[in-house]
Amino acid sequence: MSNIPLVFWLVPIAGVVALAMAWHFFRVMMREQEGTPRMREIAAYVRHGAMAYLKQQYKVVGIVFAVLAVLFALMAYVLKVQNPWVPFAFLTGGLFSGLAGFFGMKTATYASARTANAARSGLDRGLRIAFRSGAVMGLVVVGLGLIDIAMWFLILNCFYAGEPMALVTITTTMLTFGMGASTQALFARVGGGIYTKAADVGADLVGKVEANIPEDDPRNPATIADNVGDNVGDVAGMGADLYESYCGSILSTAALGATAFAMNGEMQVKAVIAPMAIAAIGIFLSLFGIYAVRTREGATMRDLLRALGRGTNLSAVLIALASFAILYLLGMENWWGLSLSVVTGLLAGVIIGQATEYYTSQSYRPTKSIAEASQTGSATVIIKGIGTGMISTMVPVVTISVAILLSFLFANGFDLSMGTASISRGLYGIGIAAVGMLSTLGITLATDAYGPIADNAGGNAEMSGLGEEVRHRTDALDALGNTTAATGKGFAIGSAALTALALLASYVEEIKIAMVRAAEGGRQFLDAAGNAFDPSAAGINEFMTYFQVTLINPKVLTGAFIGAMAAFLFCGLTMGAVGRAAGAMVDEVRRQFRERKGILEGKATPDYGRCVEISTRSAQREMIVPSLLAIIIPIVVGLVLGVGGVLGLLTGGLAAGFTLAVFMSNAGGAWDNAKKYVEEGNFGGKGSACHKATVVGDTVGDPFKDTSGPSLNILIKLMSMVSIVMAGLTVACA
Amino acid sequence: MSNIPLVFWLVPIAGVVALAMAWHFFRVMMREQEGTPRMREIAAYVRHGAMAYLKQQYKVVGIVFAVLAVLFALMAYVLKVQNPWVPFAFLTGGLFSGLAGFFGMKTATYASARTANAARSGLDRGLRIAFRSGAVMGLVVVGLGLIDIAMWFLILNCFYAGEPMALVTITTTMLTFGMGASTQALFARVGGGIYTKAADVGADLVGKVEANIPEDDPRNPATIADNVGDNVGDVAGMGADLYESYCGSILSTAALGATAFAMNGEMQVKAVIAPMAIAAIGIFLSLFGIYAVRTREGATMRDLLRALGRGTNLSAVLIALASFAILYLLGMENWWGLSLSVVTGLLAGVIIGQATEYYTSQSYRPTKSIAEASQTGSATVIIKGIGTGMISTMVPVVTISVAILLSFLFANGFDLSMGTASISRGLYGIGIAAVGMLSTLGITLATDAYGPIADNAGGNAEMSGLGEEVRHRTDALDALGNTTAATGKGFAIGSAALTALALLASYVEEIKIAMVRAAEGGRQFLDAAGNAFDPSAAGINEFMTYFQVTLINPKVLTGAFIGAMAAFLFCGLTMGAVGRAAGAMVDEVRRQFRERKGILEGKATPDYGRCVEISTRSAQREMIVPSLLAIIIPIVVGLVLGVGGVLGLLTGGLAAGFTLAVFMSNAGGAWDNAKKYVEEGNFGGKGSACHKATVVGDTVGDPFKDTSGPSLNILIKLMSMVSIVMAGLTVACA
Repeated sequence: MSNIPLVFWLVPIAGVVALAMAWHFFRVMMREQEGTPRMREIAAYVRHGAMAYLKQQYKVVGIVFAVLAVLFALMAYVLKVQNPWVPFAFLTGGLFSGLAGFFGMKTATYASARTANAARSGLDRGLRIAFRSGAVMGLVVVGLGLIDIAMWFLILNCFYAGEPMALVTITTTMLTFGMGASTQALFARVGGGIYTKAADVGADLVGKVEANIPEDDPRNPATIADNVGDNVGDVAGMGADLYESYCGSILSTAALGATAFAMNGEMQVKAVIAPMAIAAIGIFLSLFGIYAVRTREGATMRDLLRALGRGTNLSAVLIALASFAILYLLGMENWWGLSLSVVTGLLAGVIIGQATEYYTSQSYRPTKSIAEASQTGSATVIIKGIGTGMISTMVPVVTISVAILLSFLFANGFDLSMGTASISRGLYGIGIAAVGMLSTLGITLATDAYGPIADNAGGNAEMSGLGEEVRHRTDALDALGNTTAATGKGFAIGSAALTALALLASYVEEIKIAMVRAAEGGRQFLDAAGNAFDPSAAGINEFMTYFQVTLINPKVLTGAFIGAMAAFLFCGLTMGAVGRAAGAMVDEVRRQFRERKGILEGKATPDYGRCVEISTRSAQREMIVPSLLAIIIPIVVGLVLGVGGVLGLLTGGLAAGFTLAVFMSNAGGAWDNAKKYVEEGNFGGKGSACHKATVVGDTVGDPFKDTSGPSLNILIKLMSMVSIVMAGLTVACA
Repeated sequence: MSNIPLVFWLVPIAGVVALAMAWHFFRVMMREQEGTPRMREIAAYVRHGAMAYLKQQYKVVGIVFAVLAVLFALMAYVLKVQNPWVPFAFLTGGLFSGLAGFFGMKTATYASARTANAARSGLDRGLRIAFRSGAVMGLVVVGLGLIDIAMWFLILNCFYAGEPMALVTITTTMLTFGMGASTQALFARVGGGIYTKAADVGADLVGKVEANIPEDDPRNPATIADNVGDNVGDVAGMGADLYESYCGSILSTAALGATAFAMNGEMQVKAVIAPMAIAAIGIFLSLFGIYAVRTREGATMRDLLRALGRGTNLSAVLIALASFAILYLLGMENWWGLSLSVVTGLLAGVIIGQATEYYTSQSYRPTKSIAEASQTGSATVIIKGIGTGMISTMVPVVTISVAILLSFLFANGFDLSMGTASISRGLYGIGIAAVGMLSTLGITLATDAYGPIADNAGGNAEMSGLGEEVRHRTDALDALGNTTAATGKGFAIGSAALTALALLASYVEEIKIAMVRAAEGGRQFLDAAGNAFDPSAAGINEFMTYFQVTLINPKVLTGAFIGAMAAFLFCGLTMGAVGRAAGAMVDEVRRQFRERKGILEGKATPDYGRCVEISTRSAQREMIVPSLLAIIIPIVVGLVLGVGGVLGLLTGGLAAGFTLAVFMSNAGGAWDNAKKYVEEGNFGGKGSACHKATVVGDTVGDPFKDTSGPSLNILIKLMSMVSIVMAGLTVACA
């Protein structure tokens, strides 16, 4: 292991530090009081519901993992079309991704009552507890990610060090553990997303609209399920999702680095380590930012936002500066160009976040005009919201496009020759930009997980009947959470797009490796003209020519069509699932109201457990089909249309899926805040016809922004991951 | 002109026959009585409103055409980066496309009162008049199309015959008149779409929802504007759109044929003539089908549908058989393979039509379940509709994908070598499939234009206070129109996708010609490795390699992102436009109800003119930005990202735009019919809470299915056309 630069050891150290700090924040939070017996009781209800769900979910996912692992083992040891490490890598990826969600959620369910209780004595204390509890998840995700990466890197190094092309083999093998993470993440996002929105929509439709009782009212039987949903969907789902983006971006960049610098052993190992090192530095500087978040009593919404903004921006600026230092110290070729790629990624993340805020916050024109449209009824609220959401795709798409081009050019030193070397280094730069964007994850995820904690704290305060002032404070925290959730979603989508793009390039590398292996096994490859094709000598351009991955090849074009369709189909299935599950919930709540008259008068306790059970069962049943689809489509396309078809599929899925995800998330966020804007007293305020119209918008937006939209992030990454893992099979059958 | 095969003369003859038959049907219709004075009065209102709108629209479009023509003239005669015929071809394309819409609409506005009047004496007479009047537009579109094509072919032949590569030059020059047709079509679709939905949504929101008066009630001030809208949007817009698809598919196929068979002069001219000849035969056989449509009194909805189905299916089967005959007689190489490509296109059209019917008709599960969702309110109606619409993209996309692959393989004789010859012939096959799909246009467009005529006849009957029985008959005709409109939209989208794909391939040819011209002007092209590149000797594969149009080139990938975004942005802008215009209409209708109390009591006549004016003005103002965007985006992408970026843009735009268009059209159609299903007495029937919920769905669906969705067809074709026309500039600046 003498060839591993010293800087590498930063990676496991950063991982351990992140976990230690997460443990520290968790302990500090646990020392807080949970408040009145009523508060403790409600928190326990939510916690048990969430844990019961997660257990159930892990059972189902466990079966899927077992089946897939056996399949991979067959492919690896019997059919020999798979790397022998894949089954194990797949399992650890899934395990760690699941753990990240589990720890994040456990913390969140302990933190909500404590946040509500702390809010009784002051706004700043409430913010600090909620935010630091959110930071637990941020730190667990990045910590587990780097530890998993470091561990596999060391293990594989023991086996392959010294072999020719060792680093290429190691990094592409590691990449496959991303598929485990993706699979886990997809189930978490889809299942959690269906759960949370079935409960939310069901609770709102009967409680708010029909029975006219406020949000989180203890008389609503679905209210506990709604609060459980915030945890399993927004916390556990989000954690698994970003764990996957984080590892995916680092691993694919490492793989791209191993190829781009294959001709220069010394530079190659540096290129592999660089993304890990940037991520490690990101952890330390995120911690710095987390400590910078605090505010004073009497703070306005603007102050709160500024406090969170200060933390994340501080981290981002420091990471930008540190990346110059670390790449220089590492002795990377073109260190300043690569550092500029990091900065490009960071900046793109900030711009997408800002644009998301503009399109979804009630402080700006777009959301206000959706609220305005409520004067002509719910139909115009929907039309306006869909229109606004679609228009809002422009800035993120243009930003990502510019970021792709710039990070490519910075990394290859503006070498426009587009030869193999130029392209490989440019693609490495795109990966580095993705790592840059995600390097602040420790803190951005904290601001994100903070949202559902504040939301639950508000729910707890309402259900426990805490005073007016406390509700006022938790409302302020919650409103802030809505904005940070929207920017967090923008960030999750942006990073997913860059990561998927890096994975696209990695796919070609994986195909190359599979072909080299097949050639070593005696297989001969002939190109279109009938000449022998030597995969081990060919660069990325030659592979493109060999597989005719051009835009006049009907296989590629058909692949692109199917990719775009897959994104829509997937959204349609998850929307339908939420509709069905919410319908079951509505029936149950109506039944309870009808059969036990005492509930609405506050004299009888509703049966919360039944509603939790309905959400759990619906989510489990409904998540299967869309999730399997995401796994099956790329396999079938690979077998029928070959490498060109797969690349078309991934490109079409990425372009359409990214745009669709931005549209759905932003439309959903804008509807939510348009409703809040009316509730603040505009256009007649709460209870007016305008309010009712915006409630319809908000209800439609729920599955948009919390189920279908965010699940698309994982769809586009998972389709790439599946293709990568199945590369061997595609080559064998081609 | 001795080299032109005799078969060619079928083309102008078919065009003239189509126009003559259109004139005949028009005369027959005009001989019918228009009914009572009240009926005549109302028809006159609608007619004048529609004509006034069209005049206004042509003024605005005229300015755009003047500016673009001057620009093209500059590019052709000063900058010399453009073919000298382009400015003229552009203008005739625009003129003929406009004429097609104009004649179709004029006929429709004369036919509605006559249809209503004929329905007084029987269902069959009503159907026959409405359908034959619709056939006028179908025949005008195909007639003008073939005449324009034949005319330009003969003119250019006079100038170029005998020159080397004459047919390539002629066909690619002709292709550019498609841009005129596209531009006209876009303005017609977008302007007409905004007009019709602003009036419809405005009329429904105040009239049906607030004032509780029925559809088409004469007391509603927006009702005339609503009826005008059916004509300017659904008739004129649809006509211009399909004129463009029709010509675009024939011209791009001819251009692909000229290249694919460039090595064989005799076969080359046959390959150029073949798509025209198939289209010509299609006209004769469509006429045959039109005469076969008739039904008996007391016919059910199912009988009516069967009558129309019999006509179109008969035409389709005959055309399939005839294409074998004509390609054999023409002496085409691989005539049976090409005929199978024609059949593939025809079949794909039928399957997409059937799938559209399944997903949008109230006879099937999807639409019924949307109606069912109304029991839990309007929000679940919207969620369910969006989910269903997204899921409904699967069959059309898979169908088009299979059609692309099959027609490609049939045409190149399953030659998988994918060399230049193999690819060129395969692409020609895709074009032939598009022509096959569109060869039934004479009759399919008749069933399509029939819809708004029947709709207007119903409006006329309602406003004129005709008896119960007459209303019953016009309702039956109208319900049928909704289904044919939905299948017609599926057909329009499917053919647009195939046409756009053929245009994609033609774009590469156009780039080649521009480069050859530049090379003749002394310019030297060097490839990535620095070697000289001779464009005149290179095949399509070499161009792909030269421009690195692969899916790892960041320019191509960014292009794909921007293409997908363009589709969403365009929809967002048109949705927003409808929202704003409908808002203005709502304000006006409310004002009239408020200020003149007599209106609602039926004692005072509302001011219809003001509403017509508001729709006209809004449509004119709002159509500018989205339309210009469609022209500007491909130009900017071409200048910044070059040929690879443009191909990425077109592919991303096509894949995402096609899927988005299917989603929007089907969701809109399903919402409309879910409302109708409730109105038939299900879930409480008219006036119930469920009905109100489905009215919200229908209102949201209006701009989906009649503005944004169909405009996307033209967006994807126009972006290709603009790229083709700007090819010279892209090469000059690259």
